[in-house]
Amino acid sequence: MTALEIAKKYVALCKEGRNEEALDSLFSKDAVSVEAGGPPGMDRTSKGMDAIRAKGKWWTDNHTVHKAEVFGPYPHDDRFAVRFVYDITNKPSGQRMTMDEVGLFTVENGKITREEFFYSQG
Amino acid sequence: MTALEIAKKYVALCKEGRNEEALDSLFSKDAVSVEAGGPPGMDRTSKGMDAIRAKGKWWTDNHTVHKAEVFGPYPHDDRFAVRFVYDITNKPSGQRMTMDEVGLFTVENGKITREEFFYSQG
Repeated sequence: MTALEIAKKYVALCKEGRNEEALDSLFSKDAVSVEAGGPPGMDRTSKGMDAIRAKGKWWTDNHTVHKAEVFGPYPHDDRFAVRFVYDITNKPSGQRMTMDEVGLFTVENGKITREEFFYSQG
Repeated sequence: MTALEIAKKYVALCKEGRNEEALDSLFSKDAVSVEAGGPPGMDRTSKGMDAIRAKGKWWTDNHTVHKAEVFGPYPHDDRFAVRFVYDITNKPSGQRMTMDEVGLFTVENGKITREEFFYSQG
């Protein structure tokens, strides 16, 4: 698939809540995921699909999603951006919040090799 | 200014329609601007502030802006993203359209040195 086809497929799966399927089918096994920030003691960078899936599981275990909106993709050559707006409750704190962020994805050889998340902290 | 301060200032100026002031005060004179695509014969890459201002003038001369929304900034270390949603009419064609794009900005030594625009074409 071209970068544009991958971008469209990624967004289509995320809009349907099939995020794990997106990881399985569109990412390189060596992909790297980088957060803008993170809880103390948690590494901002996840290397490889096992680490990325573990981060996803941690996030899913710790948040209730009330509503998820996905905008995009916004392509630029072999990269694309996606905007995510999630209405969530953090389970440990019980705090409900809006998560508004931009993901930047890099495609190489037909797979997503890098995702970086952009958002304000605190 | 830190990258975060520059990001906030950039968005604040754009929200007030003071885009030229943002170029004058926040960009390096050697900054590079890269479009996702462009009209035939027009270079996607503008190098230096003279070229960037010329592109801005071309855009302003050729579009009527009915409404401009600016979302962000979305920071990540020395980069930040901004989402722009513009309701515009292309003057030559008379066609009214929504321009929905993500800008990715890179900050070095207290100035924006690179802007890249992400959007679908056609």
